[in-house]
Amino acid sequence: MKPDTPAPQMTDAGLEAALPVTAYDEHGRPVSRDIAAERPLTLYLDRREIVTLMTLGTQPELLVLGYLRNQGLVRQLSDIAAVQVDWEVEAAAVTTRSGKTDALDEKLHHRVVTTGCGQGTVFGRLQENLRQIRLTPPPLRQSTLYELLGNLRHHNEVYKQAGAVHGCALCRGSDILFFCEDVGRHNAVDAIAGYMWLQDMEGGDKLFYTTGRLTSEMVIKAAQMGIPALLSRSGVTQMGLEMARRTGMILISRAKGKHFLVYNGHERLIYDARPRH
Amino acid sequence: MKPDTPAPQMTDAGLEAALPVTAYDEHGRPVSRDIAAERPLTLYLDRREIVTLMTLGTQPELLVLGYLRNQGLVRQLSDIAAVQVDWEVEAAAVTTRSGKTDALDEKLHHRVVTTGCGQGTVFGRLQENLRQIRLTPPPLRQSTLYELLGNLRHHNEVYKQAGAVHGCALCRGSDILFFCEDVGRHNAVDAIAGYMWLQDMEGGDKLFYTTGRLTSEMVIKAAQMGIPALLSRSGVTQMGLEMARRTGMILISRAKGKHFLVYNGHERLIYDARPRH
Repeated sequence: MKPDTPAPQMTDAGLEAALPVTAYDEHGRPVSRDIAAERPLTLYLDRREIVTLMTLGTQPELLVLGYLRNQGLVRQLSDIAAVQVDWEVEAAAVTTRSGKTDALDEKLHHRVVTTGCGQGTVFGRLQENLRQIRLTPPPLRQSTLYELLGNLRHHNEVYKQAGAVHGCALCRGSDILFFCEDVGRHNAVDAIAGYMWLQDMEGGDKLFYTTGRLTSEMVIKAAQMGIPALLSRSGVTQMGLEMARRTGMILISRAKGKHFLVYNGHERLIYDARPRH
Repeated sequence: MKPDTPAPQMTDAGLEAALPVTAYDEHGRPVSRDIAAERPLTLYLDRREIVTLMTLGTQPELLVLGYLRNQGLVRQLSDIAAVQVDWEVEAAAVTTRSGKTDALDEKLHHRVVTTGCGQGTVFGRLQENLRQIRLTPPPLRQSTLYELLGNLRHHNEVYKQAGAVHGCALCRGSDILFFCEDVGRHNAVDAIAGYMWLQDMEGGDKLFYTTGRLTSEMVIKAAQMGIPALLSRSGVTQMGLEMARRTGMILISRAKGKHFLVYNGHERLIYDARPRH
């Protein structure tokens, strides 16, 4: 937040991520297992119903902020007066300072259902916005990458405990600035976008890590946040790659232990820690 | 198809699932890798734009049919005159026999963005429909389950080759009737729904396998298809479980090798092949 902008008023309605239930294993024996929560949260923007997100529910305010930002439904954080999450009615009410959102009908008109795990819909023609984005990734050292992967091992808490979630991390060098999990990877990305908005953070010196696949929508969202390097434990799709090429983003998949595959931006990598074998 | 219903006219526009590209490994060496295709396909229903799906593109006609069925946008297959996919313009044109779809505006109004991997949007209040569904799963033998898991190992072709896709299978006993992969698991489910519609298949004696997570939307879609047993290699969310309980569906996760966890419908399992250890 810029010093002269009042921060939006926000609830702090995060809930527990995992719930214990009884399952039966292959011996027919009852076993106690934690499973990931999945909660509907209907987003209202100036009393207008926008969408129902299915979420883990740990960071609902950041999710809502990031969703509005990534969908281009609100231009600046300072336009938002309040974000109020009330699980009793499974609703997040967002109020803007002007009390009305410009050209909302038009923005809501064009839907793209993407390969998004967790949150599929992108309003507006995001791909067109992408044409204006040109990223300039700083050089990335292999040694830094390995250090970061080591640090990430300590996260993924809900995943380890309950599975069925995706994790995302906002990183600078080998430091993890913010880590978020959700039942869908797009919710996790949106929560990070919300976090960056609140902190008034730029993306240029950041790296984005996700456990999920690098599809077009993931690349678009990272590019919109100005983040020039995207790193995943999973695979990449052809359109994800195409968008990374178009924006100049470093795209690395299958990053786990000492292994990784650089699909775009190879020339920005500094191979200072090649494994012996 | 019932014998007196003319089948819809359909193109056969399936494309290759994987494309070779060059990546760089942790030694900085170029390596050739296949990656999953991801193609936009905009669906028009009687010339009205409905949605843009991001898909692998191998079964576009079945995907479109199943999407319309699962979203409740077309009631019966016999209402559809033609499905024409043209990748040149990245469009699927669906024509109904009447030339207009009832109450489309109303159905398009309420969106739920789910935890769907691959396709997030469900039009209409699907959860309300669910109240009317009560499934009666036939008993399921552990030995059949193991045989099926063995048979499934031979599938997941694109996944093995390129990653970044989800596989779904429609099964009866240990037989795989239809297998489908897509960049999102919901596309794969929809393609299977389209296949069942075309074949005029009931779901009551079927079992549904997916590599993806068992979130609420997966359970809702399987229930809508009348399939009383859902099996996954991945985890389950709390709302997925809740919906399985509500409909009486057998819900099994972490199914891999000899291991599995029954989250609902344990009393329908016949443990006739318990592992020794």
